[in-house]
This record gives sequence, C-alpha cells and structure tokens, in this order.
Amino acid sequence: MPRLVVLRMGHRLVRDQRMTTHVALTARAFGADEVWVDREDHDLEARVADVVTRFGGPFGVRTGVSPKGSLRRWEGTVVHLTMYGEPLDETLPRIPRDRDLLLVVGSEKVPGDLFEKAGFNVAVGNQPHSEVAALAVFLDRWLQGDGLKKRFEGRLQVQPSARGKVVTTQTSEDP
Amino acid sequence: MPRLVVLRMGHRLVRDQRMTTHVALTARAFGADEVWVDREDHDLEARVADVVTRFGGPFGVRTGVSPKGSLRRWEGTVVHLTMYGEPLDETLPRIPRDRDLLLVVGSEKVPGDLFEKAGFNVAVGNQPHSEVAALAVFLDRWLQGDGLKKRFEGRLQVQPSARGKVVTTQTSEDP
Repeated sequence: MPRLVVLRMGHRLVRDQRMTTHVALTARAFGADEVWVDREDHDLEARVADVVTRFGGPFGVRTGVSPKGSLRRWEGTVVHLTMYGEPLDETLPRIPRDRDLLLVVGSEKVPGDLFEKAGFNVAVGNQPHSEVAALAVFLDRWLQGDGLKKRFEGRLQVQPSARGKVVTTQTSEDP
Repeated sequence: MPRLVVLRMGHRLVRDQRMTTHVALTARAFGADEVWVDREDHDLEARVADVVTRFGGPFGVRTGVSPKGSLRRWEGTVVHLTMYGEPLDETLPRIPRDRDLLLVVGSEKVPGDLFEKAGFNVAVGNQPHSEVAALAVFLDRWLQGDGLKKRFEGRLQVQPSARGKVVTTQTSEDP
C-alpha cells in the first residue's frame, strides 16, 4: 500500500492547537498513515498520541518537520489542498494511485512557491471554508469511502448505536 | 427543494469562534442553506456575513437560537452527527430526501437527550476527529457531490487554477 502522509503547514503554537489537532485526528480517522506538522509542538504530539493509545493505531505524528526538506525529499506525489486549485472531481482521476502521497494542508498563509512545488493544487470547492473539511472530503473521496472503514484496535471501542453512547473498554490484563 | 439547516450546539464565545466559523463556512460551501448557533455571537455573524458579501450567497446565519425550541418546532428530519451513532453508509439511505433536514453538530459536550430527540444519530466514523470533518463529509455524501458544485454569485470569484491564485472581482458600478 502506498504511504499517505498529511503535512500541516503554518501551524502556530497555542492559537492553532485546536485546529491542528482536528487536522491530525481527521487525518487518522479518514485513513492517512501519519501527520507531520511544521512547527515543533509537544503538547500537540501528546494529544494525538493519547488518542492513538486510547482508540488505536497505527498512526504517526511528528512535529517540527521542515516543509522545504520534506517536499524536496518526498519521492511520491505532492498534492496541495487550496481553494485556488483545480476542482477535486477533475483532479482525482489524474493523481497516481500506486505512489506515496503527501497531502499538504495550509493555514491561511502558505508560501507562494508551494503552488509550484506541488504536483497538484486541488480545490475542495473554490470557496473559503476549512482545511479540516477539505482534508476530510479529499480523503473520503480519494479512498472511496474505505478510509472511514479502517479498523483501529485500541483500548476503547465505540460501538455504533442508534441511541446514546456505547463504549467498550479492553483491559490489558486477564482477570 | 427541502431546506437544509445546520444547528451548531455548545458554542462558547471566544474559545470556539474559529471552530464555529469553520462549521458555518463548511455548511455554506458544502450546500446547506443556513447555520444556526445556540449562543448569541455578533462577531461570528459578522464574519460569516462578510464571506457571504464577498463570495456570494444565499446563505443565512443566526446566533442565539434555542436548540430546545428549534428541535421542538422543526417539522422535518433531525440528524445528529456524533461519533457514537450509526454508520453513515447504513444511515444515509434511510434519511428521507423530501423533507427539510436539521443537521445538529455538537461540540465536545451535548445534552444527553439530544440522542433521543434526533431521528437519526449518525457517525461519520466511530473515531474521535472533528465536527467540521463530520459535517463536510456528511454534506458531501448526502448531496452526492452536488453541494460542492453549488454556484455562488459574489463580488469575488475564485477561478480554478493549476498554479497560483486567480481571483476575479466584480465591480458593482459600470465604468
């Protein structure tokens, strides 16, 4: 299986922590293998690692990752999600399925040369909305719904329910 | 066309403004008609109205909306998005397409009786991620991709582009 990594650029400490946490958890829940964040942020790493511990993995998180270096060294395809890009519908069939995919998610400002470096600038709609929404819909469409069906083996398992919350807990020790 | 309204519950001033703005803009970009927010927040209203002015509508925003009253008075279907609900794939075909739809998006805490009041508790995956991601993917699947194709007539129009940013501005006066 080709690797699927989300690179979150423009992360600012404190101010973006909640949004970047949502980016990371969305990446995990919709089938990406890892999230990389440009700015070092140990709190963020701990928060994501905690979800992985409780709800399961594998899912990797790295912060303090140089975007320049990552883009230069990446041997697969680079897709940049941006409201200025080409429509998702038209772009998806052109993205190779047999290569690793680096999915770059910006914040409000990304360096202009990212548009040049990316193999594809993809717009999940040409309207302003949310990098979290764009990431989720891209992954859902790219993995053709299978991202959401990924099985996680964690300590906690949510059991789908028509009413209320049903969570089962796996204990690591036998009684 | 049945009406499609997103009700955001649990909004807290300042702390949630960015996240709720993303919920509102995602609702707009993915084809909902309106967003309602439980707590009154004029800044939020202004921010969303500003996007509507610049990028086009119609799209309505109301804050200070009583969730209890809204749920009681709503004559269509109520869908509650929650990681504890039933899988999206299985639920979507059961939601009536000819009735108005109120789509309830919580924050971390929602009152327990919401699970009873909603006609459907729908999980966009049974993993923790983001209300913005859940809303986007629900709308994308529910509107079968047509939400993203909605045309907006605003002052600014983003022109899809393989490289860089292309935005055209409509002036209201003739030269």
